[in-house]
Amino acid sequence: MEENKNEYLHWKEIDRKILADCHIFKVVSALREDPYGSRVDRFLLDAPDWVTVIPIVESDEGEKCLMVKQYRHGSSSVTREFPAGTVDPGEKPEDAMHRELLEETGYTAGEMVLLGAVNPNSAFMNNTQYIYAARDLKKVGGQDLDEHEEVEFELLLLSEVLEKMGRGDFSNGTMMTALGFFMRWRSADGEK
Amino acid sequence: MEENKNEYLHWKEIDRKILADCHIFKVVSALREDPYGSRVDRFLLDAPDWVTVIPIVESDEGEKCLMVKQYRHGSSSVTREFPAGTVDPGEKPEDAMHRELLEETGYTAGEMVLLGAVNPNSAFMNNTQYIYAARDLKKVGGQDLDEHEEVEFELLLLSEVLEKMGRGDFSNGTMMTALGFFMRWRSADGEK
Repeated sequence: MEENKNEYLHWKEIDRKILADCHIFKVVSALREDPYGSRVDRFLLDAPDWVTVIPIVESDEGEKCLMVKQYRHGSSSVTREFPAGTVDPGEKPEDAMHRELLEETGYTAGEMVLLGAVNPNSAFMNNTQYIYAARDLKKVGGQDLDEHEEVEFELLLLSEVLEKMGRGDFSNGTMMTALGFFMRWRSADGEK
Repeated sequence: MEENKNEYLHWKEIDRKILADCHIFKVVSALREDPYGSRVDRFLLDAPDWVTVIPIVESDEGEKCLMVKQYRHGSSSVTREFPAGTVDPGEKPEDAMHRELLEETGYTAGEMVLLGAVNPNSAFMNNTQYIYAARDLKKVGGQDLDEHEEVEFELLLLSEVLEKMGRGDFSNGTMMTALGFFMRWRSADGEK
């Protein structure tokens, strides 16, 4: 096993304490011991899993993709992003994705394809971001947002989104992560 | 201006306090006021900027890319990643990238191309990840690692890295972010 080959690089956890419960994550200080027996404190975030979806809609102008626009408190700016959210305790990631898509946009997806999964940042996160593509979209209702949540949605040309990602308000890196999986999926199996 | 068009979505910061100084980031509780005058606390991480590089080396077998292997405390696992690091105060991102590449691998790059920049996670991060491609690589020395840092490096086929990203120990999402920029760069301007 690959993991066993890397055993000599592994650290052991000796102890951990929660420094702060920040609702969207817990800040943890973990006492870790390196392979030579030396101990140091390392900080990490204990967070629930996340889901992100690239919802594709056919149109006469070409493929469009459903995106949301909202104020983000980390960047202190309005960003354009793919629909995304947090997996509730006990919820399956795919169910969370359907739920978040419906809540943020009022759309359902007849097809939800898992493109991949990653740790958002292995240096200090302990959770998984699941990335989906959605097709066969239908508008079935209005939005159902949390208190203090204001989200607008719009259909943008996929070609425009590909070009703009990482520029202006297309500034959330986790969306480029999703596009990376999407580009590989498209190029690996031809036009889908 | 696009920003002005979105003014009605903007929140104001009323106050902020640092909950924890975790070395690689500070945990901040920010009191924010929504466009309707309602106030809530939002948690965010105040972090330095990051840099990531995809270093390309020509070989008889095809293009290879220089990657590092190390234990990561967030995922509690050994991961394979592109060389990456943190921008020091007052340092230019490109200088930080050259420094980190040299420290982690002992290689210098004759050419460093900025592929793009994003906020790693606009929901709660306030920093920027700069993504580069590097060419004209030369091995000039050994590694120069921080205390408790153990990093191995290896040359892997670019085609293999593209295929494996998001699988097994290629599990750090910020590396797929970098690959997303890289794939777009390659496809936009043909073979470079």
